[in-house]
Amino acid sequence: MTILTLYSRLPDSLLLEEGGRVTTHHFQPTHYHTAIAAHEPVLRVAAGDTVITTTVDAGGRDAQGDAVTPGGNPQTGPFFIEGAEPGDTLVLRLDRLTPNRDTGVSATVLAPNVVDPSFARELPEGQPAEWRIDHGGKTATLATPVAGLAGFTLPLATMLGCFGVAPPRGQAISTATSAEHGGNMDYRGFREGVTVYLPVFVPGALFHLGDGHAVQGDGEIVGTGIEISLDVQFTVGLRKGKRIGWPRGENDDYLFTAGNARPLDQALQHATTEMVRWLRDDYGLETRAASTLLGQCVEYEVGNVFDPAYTMICKAPKRVLNSLGGGG
Amino acid sequence: MTILTLYSRLPDSLLLEEGGRVTTHHFQPTHYHTAIAAHEPVLRVAAGDTVITTTVDAGGRDAQGDAVTPGGNPQTGPFFIEGAEPGDTLVLRLDRLTPNRDTGVSATVLAPNVVDPSFARELPEGQPAEWRIDHGGKTATLATPVAGLAGFTLPLATMLGCFGVAPPRGQAISTATSAEHGGNMDYRGFREGVTVYLPVFVPGALFHLGDGHAVQGDGEIVGTGIEISLDVQFTVGLRKGKRIGWPRGENDDYLFTAGNARPLDQALQHATTEMVRWLRDDYGLETRAASTLLGQCVEYEVGNVFDPAYTMICKAPKRVLNSLGGGG
Amino acid sequence: MTILTLYSRLPDSLLLEEGGRVTTHHFQPTHYHTAIAAHEPVLRVAAGDTVITTTVDAGGRDAQGDAVTPGGNPQTGPFFIEGAEPGDTLVLRLDRLTPNRDTGVSATVLAPNVVDPSFARELPEGQPAEWRIDHGGKTATLATPVAGLAGFTLPLATMLGCFGVAPPRGQAISTATSAEHGGNMDYRGFREGVTVYLPVFVPGALFHLGDGHAVQGDGEIVGTGIEISLDVQFTVGLRKGKRIGWPRGENDDYLFTAGNARPLDQALQHATTEMVRWLRDDYGLETRAASTLLGQCVEYEVGNVFDPAYTMICKAPKRVLNSLGGGG
Amino acid sequence: MTILTLYSRLPDSLLLEEGGRVTTHHFQPTHYHTAIAAHEPVLRVAAGDTVITTTVDAGGRDAQGDAVTPGGNPQTGPFFIEGAEPGDTLVLRLDRLTPNRDTGVSATVLAPNVVDPSFARELPEGQPAEWRIDHGGKTATLATPVAGLAGFTLPLATMLGCFGVAPPRGQAISTATSAEHGGNMDYRGFREGVTVYLPVFVPGALFHLGDGHAVQGDGEIVGTGIEISLDVQFTVGLRKGKRIGWPRGENDDYLFTAGNARPLDQALQHATTEMVRWLRDDYGLETRAASTLLGQCVEYEVGNVFDPAYTMICKAPKRVLNSLGGGG
Repeated sequence: MTILTLYSRLPDSLLLEEGGRVTTHHFQPTHYHTAIAAHEPVLRVAAGDTVITTTVDAGGRDAQGDAVTPGGNPQTGPFFIEGAEPGDTLVLRLDRLTPNRDTGVSATVLAPNVVDPSFARELPEGQPAEWRIDHGGKTATLATPVAGLAGFTLPLATMLGCFGVAPPRGQAISTATSAEHGGNMDYRGFREGVTVYLPVFVPGALFHLGDGHAVQGDGEIVGTGIEISLDVQFTVGLRKGKRIGWPRGENDDYLFTAGNARPLDQALQHATTEMVRWLRDDYGLETRAASTLLGQCVEYEVGNVFDPAYTMICKAPKRVLNSLGGGG
Repeated sequence: MTILTLYSRLPDSLLLEEGGRVTTHHFQPTHYHTAIAAHEPVLRVAAGDTVITTTVDAGGRDAQGDAVTPGGNPQTGPFFIEGAEPGDTLVLRLDRLTPNRDTGVSATVLAPNVVDPSFARELPEGQPAEWRIDHGGKTATLATPVAGLAGFTLPLATMLGCFGVAPPRGQAISTATSAEHGGNMDYRGFREGVTVYLPVFVPGALFHLGDGHAVQGDGEIVGTGIEISLDVQFTVGLRKGKRIGWPRGENDDYLFTAGNARPLDQALQHATTEMVRWLRDDYGLETRAASTLLGQCVEYEVGNVFDPAYTMICKAPKRVLNSLGGGG
Repeated sequence: MTILTLYSRLPDSLLLEEGGRVTTHHFQPTHYHTAIAAHEPVLRVAAGDTVITTTVDAGGRDAQGDAVTPGGNPQTGPFFIEGAEPGDTLVLRLDRLTPNRDTGVSATVLAPNVVDPSFARELPEGQPAEWRIDHGGKTATLATPVAGLAGFTLPLATMLGCFGVAPPRGQAISTATSAEHGGNMDYRGFREGVTVYLPVFVPGALFHLGDGHAVQGDGEIVGTGIEISLDVQFTVGLRKGKRIGWPRGENDDYLFTAGNARPLDQALQHATTEMVRWLRDDYGLETRAASTLLGQCVEYEVGNVFDPAYTMICKAPKRVLNSLGGGG
Repeated sequence: MTILTLYSRLPDSLLLEEGGRVTTHHFQPTHYHTAIAAHEPVLRVAAGDTVITTTVDAGGRDAQGDAVTPGGNPQTGPFFIEGAEPGDTLVLRLDRLTPNRDTGVSATVLAPNVVDPSFARELPEGQPAEWRIDHGGKTATLATPVAGLAGFTLPLATMLGCFGVAPPRGQAISTATSAEHGGNMDYRGFREGVTVYLPVFVPGALFHLGDGHAVQGDGEIVGTGIEISLDVQFTVGLRKGKRIGWPRGENDDYLFTAGNARPLDQALQHATTEMVRWLRDDYGLETRAASTLLGQCVEYEVGNVFDPAYTMICKAPKRVLNSLGGGG
């Protein structure tokens, strides 16, 4: 079915639609933001351009481990995307997310809101742990002694915890939380190779990014991943006149939507509704068909259950979508 | 580390610990229950025994498609497990779950509680759809015309939607919902090959089972899977004096716990707390170590977000647990 | 407007509609139930009859302070109401609720689920406190020393914490929780003089009652009121063929509905929907009119936020309802 | 007990502590804000000063009914309070809230999130209704025909729906929602005569106000009160070095705290925790004493269950607090 085949290659085609030549920008930030808002842009880029930049960690430490800005998920940017206007969709391919130093840090105690209230009293005092990054072996090893976890080593699975565009209504939304504009979603599926879609609310979209994690479990249930500074490369696209309601993403296997709210039930409602709209608008499935398909095939993932707004991810498998319309 | 190696073989060893000879019971139900309670047992079995039986579908229809009992997830059983007493853990290996007729049925419209409240008005009227089961090809194909889904075919992934043991306090809990005793969890991970652990609240445990689904998406968001009657084989074990709080399970790759409650946040709290207890009790990890591990490795799955109690699954990867203590 | 005037006298008229003569039954319980279910009735009464009986406290202690039954909100009853059938509404006027001994007991520490999760660790260990009841002065005075509360005295405001009818589907619902059938709602508005309406699910309705509180704050946020045994008098009525969805009540000033669920948001949805139905069915207000009225006049009260199901109360002021239709 | 007696007169004494002479400012706004943030102040006032100003209605209409600014709870201000610094508490006495025109407007259909999801489909399409304000008789009468509500008249109970101070972290928070800084709490207890306490996050506090309602039910369940423009008079005070976590208030009968969050359960947690802190810090009650007292005396009110963050109010009766310490 033409539209589906086309759609599976959509990001690439989009990236080129604004002009054939790709420009690569190198940008080294000198200041950061702990709210996502219509701040003065640091760079203007065009659809199709690639940006190579860096992010500091959640605590404001850079590649050298120096505290260069106050903590709280400080953001690099914002980047002004030429031609982006309210009602468009910003497309971002996360080309590369690479930890750029040798140590990361994590919390070591579950957040009290992810355990039974009566169990919260059994949680010990929090204290951070350090992890050693092995860039060659692509692993993180717990360096702070924690009884029972000697030599504990995990494969790197680098992700971007917080990114988004300037929100509407003149809002400046803290990078502690998330909403329709993106923000601190802490979903471990926002990793290298993924294409992200964000609604545009202000001219230029004003894209911010930060809060890299070398590793993170579902839900960010200790309140952190392995927090680290990153080298980042991303490529920008734009869908003019395409209006979406919530952040969306796409990898080789899935379309996915992100709902950001509390409780988790509401985050799930947002994500599910956005997925129905996606299937309806781009796949021509009426609500009954989208329901029937999702009812038997949907998958959910928990982004975070720690931040002020939780994040639930609703996923539709591409193998199922691609099987549609064979005979029709 | 001995305990871990041992543990990965736990189910098998347990099943034998009560005696070396396996007895296989064939049981054909003649009546069913729509509440899980201390009903008169239909069969007495011993730890190590295997039971081969059948379940009707959620609507009370059997292998011939005949309505043999009122609908509402009617349960086969209960089975009395010899020697099971309050404070023990019942072990069940789901050996075989096989649809035993050629058609299943599903709903076709999203439940209004899984979409934005403002979107609920856009949902069409519900009407069921029939699916054709291809036992050889192991697929289900939508047989009722739904625009855009002509020939829609999915691989079978048979699961058990509702099962559990008699609850404490003389309760009789509707098979519409779930709690510590199990019940209508509608988690698609309760499939062939999985070992399930349930807390025992009454002498004999009194195990009930029913509500097979040939396929189901996460969350059972249309309110049904592909509902079907099943041939079921399960093998029973018992851990004497082992007290657990919530249903647990184990497959080749994961340990998992099920929390049943509303909202989803509370279901997640139950499941996470139960997993910490599991790691603490059986893996010797203190709360800080269990937190550090889960913080970076936990995975969650949504069981159901349709029933009166939702179900959230908390998973710990065995590959991670098995890597512990290598040097220590 | 005739129907409204009539309705404001509804309870009395109903109590008489089944026959003119009032019979008063004295019933002294000898056993109790900690689940609400289709237990063997202890007494058969007719619509219009009055019952004078007693309840033990939540811990199973009677008027002499003797532990006569296991704790957990043990219920007196059930009472079989002649002629009550599924689809009817049971009417109960709580004529008298009187503490029948000189001491009550309460918890002294907030439940961890009613404070911020991060604050739960600051809660001290729980320990019960005793209160002295002054029957003449109608007060309760804290008898266990708690620093800062020397001589702390409150006016009695006796209420019934847990009561209900046998639920449908053969369920036996623990008296720890509540649902459509009533149960452990712990709403302090269920006090002397109130008329309660309950849906009937089984022949005879099978009314249970217990769990008296001499005093209780909104939400039962320490997990108890001042728990005490009671002398109770109630009068029974029946509305044949009147189907309601949730417990309802009526006092001099308000109609009210009770929604029982978690989270509180869902309890509020149940209560609000039930109130719209009440205004629609009995006051002839279409949904828009009921909405407009409730939008500017509704009041909510928190029943409990401690039990497995929370309780939210939706209230419509009679002074507003009585003002309707003056000109029309 | 001295501190309590003093406290009951606290607002007045505070207002004078910065200087004996009261200055009254008259301020007529010329522009408005739909986010609460560190905007350029419109006026600088001192503790003890009184401000007389106006607010437009939620839709941006002024006393003449003219649309003078885009809708969405546009705010008058911000007012810079001399000497206010982060860590202080801003005190505001709402001296006068008077509708300044003859018509208000309300919605007429329940918000879909306050009814059962399955009932949402029964809600009719929304359409606004007009209300006539009788300033002399202090009533509002429904002017738009709604079947069954001919001549429907309610007493005025004017309140301020949205007000707050500039939030921390450079945030600009939409006036659609609320948080620690106040905002769109839509609590009908914020009425004439009430004293409000707000945490100060930025120099000068930067107080905004707007969104008057002539009448509103609990919860703002149709999404509006009777929306109207107001003449407002308020008097400013300051508690230097007094740090609070959430908005607080005080009227003749109650201390109260406001928790703003979703779900309602979390709003209740915030409000309850803040009340415990209040009783602990200002009344010298340890957590156990505060718990024991609130457990039997607390009252809750629903602010709103419509906005992105819900508002729950936790109230402690002054008659109870004033009874403390008689003998001690």
